[in-house]
Amino acid sequence: MTAPAASRRALLAGLAGALAAPAATGIARAADAPALRGTGDLGLVIERAAGAVLLVETTGRSRLARIDGLGDLSHASVCFSRDERYAYLFGRDGGLTKIDMLAARIDRRIVQAGNAIGGAISDDGTLVAVSNYEPGGVRIFDAATLAPVADIPAVDSRGNRSKTVGLVDIPFRGFAWSLYEGGEIWVADFWNRGNSPKLTRIFDIGRLPYDGVVTADGRHYVAGLFGEDALIRVDLWADSLKPERVLAGYGKGEAPLPVYKMPHLEGWAAVGDRLLIPAVGRHEVLVVDRERFAPVAAIPVHGQPVFIVARPDGRQAWVNFAHPLNDTVQVIDIPSLTVVHGFMPGPAVLHLEFTPRGHEVWISVRDADRVDIHETRSFGKVGEVAAAKPSGIFFTPRAHRIGV
Amino acid sequence: MTAPAASRRALLAGLAGALAAPAATGIARAADAPALRGTGDLGLVIERAAGAVLLVETTGRSRLARIDGLGDLSHASVCFSRDERYAYLFGRDGGLTKIDMLAARIDRRIVQAGNAIGGAISDDGTLVAVSNYEPGGVRIFDAATLAPVADIPAVDSRGNRSKTVGLVDIPFRGFAWSLYEGGEIWVADFWNRGNSPKLTRIFDIGRLPYDGVVTADGRHYVAGLFGEDALIRVDLWADSLKPERVLAGYGKGEAPLPVYKMPHLEGWAAVGDRLLIPAVGRHEVLVVDRERFAPVAAIPVHGQPVFIVARPDGRQAWVNFAHPLNDTVQVIDIPSLTVVHGFMPGPAVLHLEFTPRGHEVWISVRDADRVDIHETRSFGKVGEVAAAKPSGIFFTPRAHRIGV
Repeated sequence: MTAPAASRRALLAGLAGALAAPAATGIARAADAPALRGTGDLGLVIERAAGAVLLVETTGRSRLARIDGLGDLSHASVCFSRDERYAYLFGRDGGLTKIDMLAARIDRRIVQAGNAIGGAISDDGTLVAVSNYEPGGVRIFDAATLAPVADIPAVDSRGNRSKTVGLVDIPFRGFAWSLYEGGEIWVADFWNRGNSPKLTRIFDIGRLPYDGVVTADGRHYVAGLFGEDALIRVDLWADSLKPERVLAGYGKGEAPLPVYKMPHLEGWAAVGDRLLIPAVGRHEVLVVDRERFAPVAAIPVHGQPVFIVARPDGRQAWVNFAHPLNDTVQVIDIPSLTVVHGFMPGPAVLHLEFTPRGHEVWISVRDADRVDIHETRSFGKVGEVAAAKPSGIFFTPRAHRIGV
Repeated sequence: MTAPAASRRALLAGLAGALAAPAATGIARAADAPALRGTGDLGLVIERAAGAVLLVETTGRSRLARIDGLGDLSHASVCFSRDERYAYLFGRDGGLTKIDMLAARIDRRIVQAGNAIGGAISDDGTLVAVSNYEPGGVRIFDAATLAPVADIPAVDSRGNRSKTVGLVDIPFRGFAWSLYEGGEIWVADFWNRGNSPKLTRIFDIGRLPYDGVVTADGRHYVAGLFGEDALIRVDLWADSLKPERVLAGYGKGEAPLPVYKMPHLEGWAAVGDRLLIPAVGRHEVLVVDRERFAPVAAIPVHGQPVFIVARPDGRQAWVNFAHPLNDTVQVIDIPSLTVVHGFMPGPAVLHLEFTPRGHEVWISVRDADRVDIHETRSFGKVGEVAAAKPSGIFFTPRAHRIGV
């Protein structure tokens, strides 16, 4: 039952099992006197081992507060309310926590399932969806109160219950996800439907989808298949939703990989009419035509890529790598498709997040207990924030994007 | 001396001259007890004739406050601080006003020139630039204090002073603009330069640039030329900046137009690998290949397009039109490049702004003293906000975009 979990954020979680709780950091909560401040430059950094998050701000490059008591954050992800005041944190243990970033405290928290993997918020800001392994399915909650809105068990065409993976938001109060064991893609449409979505099921997508993403325009949902040498793409703008097999031979020439070595689909970068994606089991970034999903180039890099992140202007993509080469970051120049810079932030570089217009990037260096901040023109380090074993970094402008 | 001014926002300004001050609206300022709230869903609506702005929020579709005393707003535009708390309002009379949206009051205000047209904020949030007609040039201010940082008179290669137009921000504390009489494009680079920018001048761009824009990736600066049948494009990623003549024949078959009839370049929509731009003097939307700037199609529409605005997912573009056909909005479906919907909000539809993920759109209907709010899936009206002769609408997620 752990295969998709391991695959989805295996590298974020790192190799170690449960880590000991970190030493006290001496940072108190700042909940007593909430400050009047804008929220467009806020963010959260996951301290996985501690079950805590740091509240940070990117203008002064500082940490504002630490919020703990958040449960198992080993595959945690975050989305934001459309006013950018609240963060929704999805924990591995089924915990769904609504954090009030202005008050730097937990607003509400529920444990909505026994075992969960990621979530999303609807474009109108009213619905929060969570993808569950146990019990397998998707649950939808009121974003204001976390009251239950809908429960959608993932029962496949053979009547068996599946774990769900690759949950994303799509326009008009919609969500899409995949059934791991069932091999189906489901699209739920809550637009003008109250609490009873219209559900569209897509069959015959292939075996064992282990992850899914949607393109930033909300048009194409793409699922990765465990052990099959292709991806499945669905055009959500089409009148009739059909699975299309793309990137056949994606893992060509390699032995079948264990699922925990399958690449994150979240690690894809979209730049202009190209996608940059991790080559499977190779030290390469694959460049794919965005329309046809055909490979057009391969860029040799330092290791097996994990996250390939486009600078918001699309002129660069920054890449981190899998263990044991995970102390390094490389920068690809997009017009020339060449590596133009590399450096070693330190042990276990787990994640990268750009400021919204791309002038700086925050990099979590887990085993140095540090988040490093670099400017992205000549790559110099401009700041750092102390963090206990930091993993994911999430900034509030994600609130305004589709499918994150 | 009024030609570029008239051109740049002629249609926003409408046909009438100065209008009488509107009747009192009965809305008080809300400055006494600033509320703790997120800022990702805030916006401003310009009440041009009244020299006021409405503070609005898009979650509950309501107006929160009215702020007046802002001078001549006949060609006003707005940009936002990176934390989305402050708005910078650029008035026609040289006024630069910093509005604290959380307190719903003016934070600071200066009159920095006698006659101005638009402004921009740097990606790091530290510099605000204003484009001036009188005295011709660009002035740069500290975004926190509005203290002067740099004054860049627009003195052309013949030693004459020009009005400046088409001012935009570009990545890394940069700005670009055009010299109207001088026929030059200037690029200022403040990165690692303190208050003394590196200035690059581009000559031989053609006669009388009346406006300029930069693409959303910050790569291509494009200037429109008054009376010449082409546009000028500069690739800002190139090692050496050179003017390139594109869209030759853009106004082909038409008599030379007076400058006040030249289309806004802000009215361009970028969708996928295409640009949708107003055809000159025709009832058509021109579809242009984004890479080569070659026309690939023309879509017949209701009138002379003014603003063509892409829904953020790129599946639709919404269009308003020039007087006397300015009571109508049409919606273009991008995959089919056909008009799929049209309706008549009312007299003098001046501007459109989408919510950041595109589920709703706000439309200013000047002569109905109303801003209408429509959902964008089946186009139904879902709300309205009273406003005295509303023109431009600006939402805070613009803070996170390049070149707006």
